[in-house]
Amino acid sequence: MTNYVYDLMKKHHSVRKFKDKPLSNDEVKKLVEAGQSASTSSYLQTYSIIGVNDPRVKKDLKEVSGQPYVVDNGYLFVFVMDYYRHSLIDEDKKSDMDVSISSTEGLLVGSIDVALVAQNMAVAAEDMGYGMVYLGSLRNDVHRVKEILNLPEHAFPLFGMAVGEPADDEDGAPKPRLPFEHIFHENLYNSNEQEQRKALEDYDKTVSDYYHKRTNGERNETWSNQIARALGSKQRLDMLDELKKSGFLKH
Amino acid sequence: MTNYVYDLMKKHHSVRKFKDKPLSNDEVKKLVEAGQSASTSSYLQTYSIIGVNDPRVKKDLKEVSGQPYVVDNGYLFVFVMDYYRHSLIDEDKKSDMDVSISSTEGLLVGSIDVALVAQNMAVAAEDMGYGMVYLGSLRNDVHRVKEILNLPEHAFPLFGMAVGEPADDEDGAPKPRLPFEHIFHENLYNSNEQEQRKALEDYDKTVSDYYHKRTNGERNETWSNQIARALGSKQRLDMLDELKKSGFLKH
Repeated sequence: MTNYVYDLMKKHHSVRKFKDKPLSNDEVKKLVEAGQSASTSSYLQTYSIIGVNDPRVKKDLKEVSGQPYVVDNGYLFVFVMDYYRHSLIDEDKKSDMDVSISSTEGLLVGSIDVALVAQNMAVAAEDMGYGMVYLGSLRNDVHRVKEILNLPEHAFPLFGMAVGEPADDEDGAPKPRLPFEHIFHENLYNSNEQEQRKALEDYDKTVSDYYHKRTNGERNETWSNQIARALGSKQRLDMLDELKKSGFLKH
Repeated sequence: MTNYVYDLMKKHHSVRKFKDKPLSNDEVKKLVEAGQSASTSSYLQTYSIIGVNDPRVKKDLKEVSGQPYVVDNGYLFVFVMDYYRHSLIDEDKKSDMDVSISSTEGLLVGSIDVALVAQNMAVAAEDMGYGMVYLGSLRNDVHRVKEILNLPEHAFPLFGMAVGEPADDEDGAPKPRLPFEHIFHENLYNSNEQEQRKALEDYDKTVSDYYHKRTNGERNETWSNQIARALGSKQRLDMLDELKKSGFLKH
């Protein structure tokens, strides 16, 4: 492996503050092409990408997300799981696709395909010297996002991505990941509770040290506490309804 | 963007025939570390990776998949959506996480997190000079895969990835993707049926020409026909049940 790609990936951190300098059309096209080169399950290509540069559309999406970098960035992408074109083929070929498209398998295939495209684009954007951040916050109000972007049935907005040149005072850094030994299992999953708890305890210390150093001792926070807060908060419980309304996840 | 990364991505094609030459432990670790550097939603890191090198485990997984390259490869990874460690934290913190973990949002976050890690690893593997292929076919029998890998509740096998040096007679090539103009929309989704159908017609010709050339005229196949066959075949309709059994997708 080249040091170049390894280092590029290892230094990734989400950038949430960008210079006011738009990407060129050529850059946008190259990013999307790099994204499309990713593997796709059974050649299905279950995605569309909305490139957003209209300030009014950005403003509307910011109201959903709540994040300032939905408006202030170099470029904004919205990633759509998309079986609309497949459904048009179905009309012609009468192949009874709806069972597959509306199945849980259809959702898994569709959302994983989208994520593979997006992650190629994330790496490609950072390779261009840009920073990026994913926007799960567009799922705060999927109904409204569908409306803003004029999505037809069988098209569902999964997340966004803001890209751009990091602002001069942007000072993000890679956050420590769960240790290799904890997330990697050889041949069999090791669900030994004691070992897992010990690993989490050690990692809590790593994360807490990280925040301590980054904030000159102001932030005291373990990973476990963040996770308890994030998953305890019961967000976006309308996702099943919204997927069903778009023709997904019926069985 | 460097030509290096753009070209690396653009020349991707799935490799399904590998030399009998295992990856080193150091290479496996570097790949996983590169994967872990990808973004993770709310820092949740909802994944585990099973590295499979035991021939018996490979053989068992091959029986599920049906594909010879599950056994014959340089290394085999299985990607697991994993909230098991979060559920251990929940036991300690009493943060009532189960609503989130078992929600549709929890599934979206979890599966997308896994896919981001995997795609970094795919790019990193190709950067090392290896070929790779995703294995959705492990979902042919998720119940059995859970058993083979000894997965606990809140852990679900999404897909595998075989990596290795391409065999000397491996002759894959990138398959043409849907045209940029068709999958990319500026600000608003263009669902105009006539334009979409025209784009699909043109793309059918591109794909059919591609197969024609690759097989010296033997294979006649459009994209639409492949899609109709793939989505008409109603595969893996047990996914909702299997997710529920693992504690997912209850609401």
